[in-house]
Amino acid sequence: MLYFRNDYGAGAHPAVLEALCRTNMDLTAGYGTDPCCREAADMIRDLCRCPGAAVHFLVGGTQVNKTAIGAFLRPYEAAISADSGHICVHEAGAVEHNGHKILHLPSSDGRLTPELLESHLAGPFNEHTVSPRLAYISNSTELGTIYDGPGLHALRAACDEKRLLLYCDGARLGSAMEAGGTSFADYGETCDAFTLGGTKNGLLFGEALVIVNPALQPGFRCCMKQQGAMLAKGRLLGVQFSAILKDGLYLKLASHANALARRIAEGLEAMGIPLLAPAESNQVFPILPDGAVERLREHAEFEVERKMDAGRTCIRFVTAWHTREEDTDALVELTGSLIR
Amino acid sequence: MLYFRNDYGAGAHPAVLEALCRTNMDLTAGYGTDPCCREAADMIRDLCRCPGAAVHFLVGGTQVNKTAIGAFLRPYEAAISADSGHICVHEAGAVEHNGHKILHLPSSDGRLTPELLESHLAGPFNEHTVSPRLAYISNSTELGTIYDGPGLHALRAACDEKRLLLYCDGARLGSAMEAGGTSFADYGETCDAFTLGGTKNGLLFGEALVIVNPALQPGFRCCMKQQGAMLAKGRLLGVQFSAILKDGLYLKLASHANALARRIAEGLEAMGIPLLAPAESNQVFPILPDGAVERLREHAEFEVERKMDAGRTCIRFVTAWHTREEDTDALVELTGSLIR
Amino acid sequence: MLYFRNDYGAGAHPAVLEALCRTNMDLTAGYGTDPCCREAADMIRDLCRCPGAAVHFLVGGTQVNKTAIGAFLRPYEAAISADSGHICVHEAGAVEHNGHKILHLPSSDGRLTPELLESHLAGPFNEHTVSPRLAYISNSTELGTIYDGPGLHALRAACDEKRLLLYCDGARLGSAMEAGGTSFADYGETCDAFTLGGTKNGLLFGEALVIVNPALQPGFRCCMKQQGAMLAKGRLLGVQFSAILKDGLYLKLASHANALARRIAEGLEAMGIPLLAPAESNQVFPILPDGAVERLREHAEFEVERKMDAGRTCIRFVTAWHTREEDTDALVELTGSLIR
Amino acid sequence: MLYFRNDYGAGAHPAVLEALCRTNMDLTAGYGTDPCCREAADMIRDLCRCPGAAVHFLVGGTQVNKTAIGAFLRPYEAAISADSGHICVHEAGAVEHNGHKILHLPSSDGRLTPELLESHLAGPFNEHTVSPRLAYISNSTELGTIYDGPGLHALRAACDEKRLLLYCDGARLGSAMEAGGTSFADYGETCDAFTLGGTKNGLLFGEALVIVNPALQPGFRCCMKQQGAMLAKGRLLGVQFSAILKDGLYLKLASHANALARRIAEGLEAMGIPLLAPAESNQVFPILPDGAVERLREHAEFEVERKMDAGRTCIRFVTAWHTREEDTDALVELTGSLIR
Repeated sequence: MLYFRNDYGAGAHPAVLEALCRTNMDLTAGYGTDPCCREAADMIRDLCRCPGAAVHFLVGGTQVNKTAIGAFLRPYEAAISADSGHICVHEAGAVEHNGHKILHLPSSDGRLTPELLESHLAGPFNEHTVSPRLAYISNSTELGTIYDGPGLHALRAACDEKRLLLYCDGARLGSAMEAGGTSFADYGETCDAFTLGGTKNGLLFGEALVIVNPALQPGFRCCMKQQGAMLAKGRLLGVQFSAILKDGLYLKLASHANALARRIAEGLEAMGIPLLAPAESNQVFPILPDGAVERLREHAEFEVERKMDAGRTCIRFVTAWHTREEDTDALVELTGSLIR
Repeated sequence: MLYFRNDYGAGAHPAVLEALCRTNMDLTAGYGTDPCCREAADMIRDLCRCPGAAVHFLVGGTQVNKTAIGAFLRPYEAAISADSGHICVHEAGAVEHNGHKILHLPSSDGRLTPELLESHLAGPFNEHTVSPRLAYISNSTELGTIYDGPGLHALRAACDEKRLLLYCDGARLGSAMEAGGTSFADYGETCDAFTLGGTKNGLLFGEALVIVNPALQPGFRCCMKQQGAMLAKGRLLGVQFSAILKDGLYLKLASHANALARRIAEGLEAMGIPLLAPAESNQVFPILPDGAVERLREHAEFEVERKMDAGRTCIRFVTAWHTREEDTDALVELTGSLIR
Repeated sequence: MLYFRNDYGAGAHPAVLEALCRTNMDLTAGYGTDPCCREAADMIRDLCRCPGAAVHFLVGGTQVNKTAIGAFLRPYEAAISADSGHICVHEAGAVEHNGHKILHLPSSDGRLTPELLESHLAGPFNEHTVSPRLAYISNSTELGTIYDGPGLHALRAACDEKRLLLYCDGARLGSAMEAGGTSFADYGETCDAFTLGGTKNGLLFGEALVIVNPALQPGFRCCMKQQGAMLAKGRLLGVQFSAILKDGLYLKLASHANALARRIAEGLEAMGIPLLAPAESNQVFPILPDGAVERLREHAEFEVERKMDAGRTCIRFVTAWHTREEDTDALVELTGSLIR
Repeated sequence: MLYFRNDYGAGAHPAVLEALCRTNMDLTAGYGTDPCCREAADMIRDLCRCPGAAVHFLVGGTQVNKTAIGAFLRPYEAAISADSGHICVHEAGAVEHNGHKILHLPSSDGRLTPELLESHLAGPFNEHTVSPRLAYISNSTELGTIYDGPGLHALRAACDEKRLLLYCDGARLGSAMEAGGTSFADYGETCDAFTLGGTKNGLLFGEALVIVNPALQPGFRCCMKQQGAMLAKGRLLGVQFSAILKDGLYLKLASHANALARRIAEGLEAMGIPLLAPAESNQVFPILPDGAVERLREHAEFEVERKMDAGRTCIRFVTAWHTREEDTDALVELTGSLIR
C-alpha cells in the first residue's frame, strides 16, 4: 500500500528517537522546567533572532492553537481566519469552546490576504458585535499554498493598520519555509506569535510556540496548565526539538518532503490531471474522476478533500520526511493508469 | 424628529404599565415562582396548544438565545444560522462565549431554508469538526422577511431529516405571525423551542421561552440562574405577559406596526425607491443615495443597514405599536422630497 | 401573612414607579446610551467622588457579579470569597461557568478579613494552582453583618499587599452604609469596583456597577452584551436610579429597613432568643426550636437559613423599605408566643 | 543526588521504549483509530471485565480529568472532591475553566468517604446552587492513602444513594491496586469512569480513560478533539499501554515502587520520624525539623508538602519503578543523620 494519507503516520526521525533513547533514564524536573527545554528554547530564539521571545513546548496542534488564542484574547475578541483554516474546520470548535468567535473569511486558496481583511473588516464593530483582534494564518495552508516573505510582511502591515495580532500556525512551517524562501527570522519579525510544528516533520509529537510580543507573554504557563496542555515529562519535547533543530535537520526533512510533492505534482500535471491549488509545499490536491478515486484506494492511502462537480473528486496526497522517491513514482504511474 | 430607529424606543403599552402599577405592592415569591408567572405560562401553553411545554420568562433577547442554546447543546455541538442571524452578528459572540460554534449559512434574504441546510450540511462531520445540532431561525428575520406556515413545516421536515433541533428566536414573533398567517400553535408544532418576544411589542422588557421538546426541559432553571438570567422580581415578567396576551392585544399591536410598515413601503416603492428585501413585517429597508441619507438624519431617526454600491446606502425604518400613521406619511413624504 | 421572606417581594418605591410612568412614552436610544443613564451615572460619580469611574447599569445581582468578575480576570485567575458569599453559594456556579475558580475562605460571620487573607493566601501559587486575584466581599454580608469604614480600609491595605483587586457586591449597599457609617466615597476610595444595589432597595430591578480602577474599564460594554446583560430599554435603569438617588431617598429607604430589623432583633433578644449573627443591617437570624419554626410558617413568610444542633433551626427575617412597624411588632410577639 | 522528587522524572520502562522503537516506522491512521490502540483497549476491557466499556487514550492527567468531567456534566452540575484532590489544587482551575464548580470537602487523609458525602451534601440544592453530580476520587490519593475494595464499594453505594457519578482518577492506580488489594475489575464494577495512569508507572506519557457507564460514552471523541486532547500519532499511546499491560508488568512496577516506599517509611518511623499520613502506596510524607529539610536538599531531591507548626516541615518522598533499593537506604540513613 502506498502511504500518502498524511505526514504524521510514522513515528520519529531516527535522530530524534536516538535522543529520546539516550536520555531515557535521566531524572529531571517536570513540566518543561528542565535543561533540555531551556536548550531547545534558546536554539529557537537564536534561529528567530528574538532574544526576548517566550518559547513554550506543547504536544499538539489543536492544543497549541486553542491555548494560545485563548490566552491572547479578551472574552469578546474574535479571531479571523481564512474559511479553510484549521481552527475553522478541523478542531471541533476548540477556539469557540474557549469562548471566542472566529470570523471566517472566504478564501479560494487558503490564504488570508490584506485585501480580504480590508473588505471584510470594514465594520462597524461595536459592543453588539465581536471585536476582531487576531489574524490566524497557517503556513503552509490547509490547501498546501504558502506565504512568502513579501506576503508575510504585507499581512503584518495590514494587521498593524487594523490593530490585529498576527498568529501563524506553523504545523507545517518547515515545509512552508523551504517552499517560500522564508527564514525563522521572518516569523520573529512579522508575527506576534507563531508555532514551529514538530509532529509533521520528524518528531513523535510536539509544537513549539514562540511568543514574540512581550504583552502576550505573562501568565502563559498558567494557561497551559489550565488547558491540560503541560506535559508532565516536558523534557521529551525539549529533547526532540533540540535533536531536530541540530545541523539544519528540520529544514532538510521539510525540503525532502517538498521535493517529492513537487515530483508528484509535475508527474500528474504532465498527464493533464488538474490540481485544486498549486502544489507549493508537501501537499498535492489532484482532481480525479470518481471512479479513478475508488480504484486508487485499493493501492494507496490518501484523504478525500471534497467532491467537485461532474463526477470528479479532489483528493489529497501528502509527502513526509520518510516518503520514498520510488513510492512517489509508483503513485504517479498508478494514478495515470487509472485515468486512461 | 420622526422616530423609526427601532421598536424598543418607548416603554410599555398602557395596559401593561397599568398592570405593573396595579400589582406593584403585592408581595410574592421571587424568581418566577409566583402566581402571575404561572398564569402567563398557562396562557402561552394554551395559545400554543402545548400543554406539556415548559415556559420560562427571561429579560432580553441575547440572554434568552444564549441561555437556551447553551442549555440545549452538548459542548461540541454547533448551531446553524443564516449569516444575518441575530446570534451571528449582533450578540457580541454570546453563543460562542458559551462554548458553541455557529455555522453561518449564506442567505440573501435572512431566511434559513431546507435547500441551504441541504447544501451546507453535506458533511462529513466527525470528531474533528463540530457536530451541527440546532437550526436557529429568527421570525421575522433581521431583514424583515418572514417564515409562513408552509415554510416552517418544510424547515421542520428538513431538520428531522438532518436530526437537528429547530429553535425560533421570536423577538418579533407577533409581527411575523400577523404577516405570515402563522398561529402560536404552528410554533408549538414545528419548533423544539421558541421565544415570544415582549420587548419589541409592548412590554418594558421580557421574552417568553417555550420549550416544547421534553428532552430539553430538565435543568433549565439552573441554566437560567447560572447565566444571570433569572429576574429576582420575576413576577414583573408574568404580569406583563398576562396583560399583553389578554384579549389578543399582542397580535393587535403587531398588526398595527405591520400595517404602518407596509404603508411606508408602498409609499416608497410608489416613488421608485428600491427596497433591500420585501417589507413583509415591521421593518423596511430602503436603498437611498448617500446624500439623501445624510439629509434625512436631520429630521428622522433610523439605523444604517449597510453601504451599497455606487453612492447608495441601505437604511432601516422600524415601526412599532406606538407609531402614528401621520408620522409614517411624513416620513414617506420627507424621503421622497430628498431624492427628487 | 406577615412578609419577612426577602427584600425583593414588592415592586418599586412610588417615586420610582412614578418616574417610569412619566417617561414611559419617551423615545430614546437603547442599551443604556440615553440621557437618563448618563444623568444617573453622573449622580453616582458625584456621590462617590470618582469623576473617572465608569458606571454601568445591569438588571440583576448574579448578572453583575458574573459579568464583572469575568471581565476583570484572566482565565487562570481566581476570586476569593468568604464561604458564605453570594457568588459561592447562591449563583448556581455562575462565576465558575465563566471559567474562574472561587477560593472559599471559612468565615463565621460572613466577612472576609485581612487575617483570613493572610492565613489562606500564603501559597505557594504557581502555574499548577489558580492565581488569586480578586477579593469579593458583599456589604452587607449574607449573614447581615457589615464592613465599616476602618474595616474597608484595612481590607484594601491587605489587598494591596497581596496584589488583589477588591470588588464589593453592594446588593444591599444602602443598608450597609446606613448601618456601618460608610459613605459612597468610602467605596470609591477602597474598591476597584463595586455595585450599588437597586433591586433590594426600591427599584423594580437594577444594579449599578461602578468601576473605579481605570485598568478594568476598557471593553466592559462588550462583556455586558456578550453576557446577555445589556437591557434593550436601558433607559429604564437610568430613570429608576435617578429617581432613587434624588434627595437621599436611597439611604432613607435603607435606614427604614435597618431600623425595623433592629426593632425585631431587640424584641427577640429581649425574649432570650439567640441570633446567629449580630443584626447589623436589615436581616435578622433568630435560632428557634424546630417546632416553633413550623408553627411560625402558618402566620409568617421567611427563609430557613440552616439546621442547627439539638432540634433548633436558624431562620431569616428580612425587612425592606415597605415593611410596616406594626408588622415587625406582630412578628416579635408571634415568635415570642411560640417559644413559651 | 538522590532522586525522590516524583514518579515522572525518568522516561519509559525499557519494555515500553523497545515497543516504541520497534513500531517507529509503521504507517498507521492517526488519532487513536489504529490497531495498536484497539489492542490496548481490548486488553483493558478484559482486565476490567467490562466488555461494553469505552476506552480512550489521552496524554496527561489534568487533560483527562478536565475532558472527562467536562464531558460528563451539564453546565450547572458540580464535581465533589476531597479538598486535597488533584482537581482542586493542582490543575490551575481546569475544571472550573470548563465551567464547573468543584465542591471541596474537608478531608484529613485525602479520601472522600460516605460520611463526608452525607454531612456535606445535605442540601438543599436547587436552581440557586450548583447541582452536585460527580464524586471525584484519586486512588492513590494525593496524600498517598488508598481506597481498598470495601472502601470503593461503600463509596459506590453512597453515590447511588445521592445519585452521583463516581469518577476515579487513577494517575497512580497501579500503586493503589497493589497496596489496597483491588483489581481492575473492582473499578469496572464500582466506577462510572476511571483512569489508568501510565505517566507515573512506566510510560513516557499516557492515561487510559475507561468509561463504564454507557450513558457517558456518546460524543467523547468529539470532546477530546475539542479539548486539544487527541494525539495525532495516537498509536504511541496504544503501543505503550499494550507493552506495559503485557505479562502483568504494570502491577509489577507499581509493586516495586510501593515496596521501596514502605522500606523508607519503616526506616524513618524506626528512627521516630512522624509521617503526615500512613505510607500506604508509593509516597511518604515525613515531618522534619526545618533545618534538617534544608540540609537534606543538598543531597536529595524531593517536594515540600506543607509547613507544619513549630519549625517543622512536611516533605514528600516518591518512589517509582526505577528507584533503586540502595538509594532508599541511603535516603533513610541520610535523613536520620540530619535529625540526630
